[in-house]
Amino acid sequence: MSQSEAPEAPDVARTAPGPGAPGRPAGRHYLDHASTSPLRPEARSAFEAALDLPAADPGRVHHEGRTIRAWLEGAREQVAELFGVRPRQVVLTSGGTEAINTAVWGALGGARGPGDLTSGPRLVACAAVEHSAVRAASERLARMVDVPVDATGRLSADGVADALERCRTEHGRLPDLVHCQWANHEVGTVQPVAEVVAVCHAYGVPVHVDAVAAAGHLPVDAGALGAELVSVSSHKLGGPAGAGALLVGRSLRYEPLLVGGDQERARRAGLENVPAAVGFGAAAAALSAPESLATESARALALTRRLAAGLCAVEGVTRYGHPTEHLPHLVAVGIDGVEGEPVLLGLDQRGIAAHSGSSCSSESLEPSPVLAAMGVDGERSLRLSVGWSSTDADVDACLAAFPDVVAGLRRLRG
Amino acid sequence: MSQSEAPEAPDVARTAPGPGAPGRPAGRHYLDHASTSPLRPEARSAFEAALDLPAADPGRVHHEGRTIRAWLEGAREQVAELFGVRPRQVVLTSGGTEAINTAVWGALGGARGPGDLTSGPRLVACAAVEHSAVRAASERLARMVDVPVDATGRLSADGVADALERCRTEHGRLPDLVHCQWANHEVGTVQPVAEVVAVCHAYGVPVHVDAVAAAGHLPVDAGALGAELVSVSSHKLGGPAGAGALLVGRSLRYEPLLVGGDQERARRAGLENVPAAVGFGAAAAALSAPESLATESARALALTRRLAAGLCAVEGVTRYGHPTEHLPHLVAVGIDGVEGEPVLLGLDQRGIAAHSGSSCSSESLEPSPVLAAMGVDGERSLRLSVGWSSTDADVDACLAAFPDVVAGLRRLRG
Repeated sequence: MSQSEAPEAPDVARTAPGPGAPGRPAGRHYLDHASTSPLRPEARSAFEAALDLPAADPGRVHHEGRTIRAWLEGAREQVAELFGVRPRQVVLTSGGTEAINTAVWGALGGARGPGDLTSGPRLVACAAVEHSAVRAASERLARMVDVPVDATGRLSADGVADALERCRTEHGRLPDLVHCQWANHEVGTVQPVAEVVAVCHAYGVPVHVDAVAAAGHLPVDAGALGAELVSVSSHKLGGPAGAGALLVGRSLRYEPLLVGGDQERARRAGLENVPAAVGFGAAAAALSAPESLATESARALALTRRLAAGLCAVEGVTRYGHPTEHLPHLVAVGIDGVEGEPVLLGLDQRGIAAHSGSSCSSESLEPSPVLAAMGVDGERSLRLSVGWSSTDADVDACLAAFPDVVAGLRRLRG
Repeated sequence: MSQSEAPEAPDVARTAPGPGAPGRPAGRHYLDHASTSPLRPEARSAFEAALDLPAADPGRVHHEGRTIRAWLEGAREQVAELFGVRPRQVVLTSGGTEAINTAVWGALGGARGPGDLTSGPRLVACAAVEHSAVRAASERLARMVDVPVDATGRLSADGVADALERCRTEHGRLPDLVHCQWANHEVGTVQPVAEVVAVCHAYGVPVHVDAVAAAGHLPVDAGALGAELVSVSSHKLGGPAGAGALLVGRSLRYEPLLVGGDQERARRAGLENVPAAVGFGAAAAALSAPESLATESARALALTRRLAAGLCAVEGVTRYGHPTEHLPHLVAVGIDGVEGEPVLLGLDQRGIAAHSGSSCSSESLEPSPVLAAMGVDGERSLRLSVGWSSTDADVDACLAAFPDVVAGLRRLRG
């Protein structure tokens, strides 16, 4: 099924807009926070307060414009605080994908295309475990240099150094950009991002860090890290959809991807989405409160440990990713003998929302290149992820349903 | 003042988020709807209903994902209906600027940069009255061919034909794309867009129509027009910020600007902003109701006629734009002897929010190229614009304040 087709789902109200279903339907257990997390109450009320403001373009000098501008700058300060940067380093975008596309475009000099006659094609070093947005935004502008990963999907500083040397040998120069995700979105492996940045900077090569999966679940101090470009998203940490940020190194200037206005210090054109920014800011502020992120992460880790133990108690189920360097809120497993998608559908019938790298509903019909890079069969994977609103009951429901679903599918296969 | 600087506005609460000011502060008269229009009540309630839905990525197969998907597709149908296209022709974006940037990128073949060795540089024909997003997105990828306008800022089919012929003479071939805005955002002149599309299609050249200023204020039937690409925005017609659409010709395929996921039939990557889309859809549905747009436009026209008559009763004030082919909701005037910005500030002190093409708060510090193309002094311009929530009292307040403000400034100049 193409993702852009409307589903054939007779149980779903097709008429929109209408009265909304409650945010937490009875009997449902949402274990797909790594796809998108519900709006935190703090973010919801800030968002609604922003909707109550007088409408205005924050670029206007009138009272309404100045009011909206003050709210926007307040939100920017909150986002900056969570990520350890100055407010002026925060370029607000429509989301993580736009931030990533902007980072790549900006780092590679914008419209100067590959095949430029003066300097040869642009070069980007990137591991196969990077998100499809990182890879696709790079591949259309540059030749790719592969960075190796181990069987847990983890990069190493040595592997990056080898890739840089190989690039110099094969192409006569170092790459224009290296990507290193903060943590992997499919299996949860946390990368040695500080070491990778140190190696790249020793070679004088700039780094983009996709922190979309990690932000809000691990401390992401982009200021201390010192990477030139860091991408984050709002909706994966309990802020609204439609907001994200590119965190830009302090002296860095770049060509914007969206042009036609001087918004965001001429780094992103288009009317600022102030209510979404305010919601993002409030979610960031909730996570910046003392112990807040640490407490949530510890809770998430307890839930995912219980999930992982329960899932792996079923024969032929193995956990993916690094055993210790791991996102707290995410469990990915491989299941011998059954494909991920029927497991998803079986869990869904029992009230559990999960995700599979092999699902036809995911971003592509191709098998996951992330799992392929780890030498793993993406057709048989299942990803469960928790968040701020997850409970023990969600884990209980999943662990009650999972063995039956897998056993039933294995019986069908005979 | 750079737009990205926080204002020095001691009267404005800088702490966000907090309790919101009311949407319509006492004593204020918002006459800047052409910058952004307040959220319509229908859009606000649909938006909030969408926030009440369970969180989910609409690309997921689980119940939550299918529910969200159904709301997204419902919103797409509402947007499609207002603009006379099929739902699958609607590519939802983060706003008008992204739609325009995507249109130009897509029409010009994406990352294949200017200076391509096989076919020479790309060529775009464009009038100086187009929005800065149209011009900037084109200039970075193509050589520009100027399309002339008259003193009202209006293109003509003959002028476009001449530009196409001139392009063929000077560059050896026709342009890759012609831009023709539906209506001008600064002075309100409505373009002969159907005639321009007919001329371009007779030459076999595709057309992008920036309908951001016109959508919701005039009937915009993109289906009947038949242009390859039409850009529209949500917040200028009373939908939420953070939504817009690129309306794509029925057989057209293009390279997306944002890549990394197959959302929007692989034409725009990134998690769909479903609440914003639902709000956009509800605003579109409100305008699709029988007589709704016609009634609103007639009301707007009555208000702006009264505004224009009152402003032009002051000596040395002249209205800009075409006398009959004109957006109903917008009045732009030139004021002899005083600059636009102090007029703006004087009106603001008297409770009136307006806009000036010369304001340092607008998208650029440069004088407006739109007004320059019309042979007009952009430093002395003032733009007032009404919308769905405007009242006679707003017009009365403006007309009461304007003569005093202008007289006071003229006295100061001595």
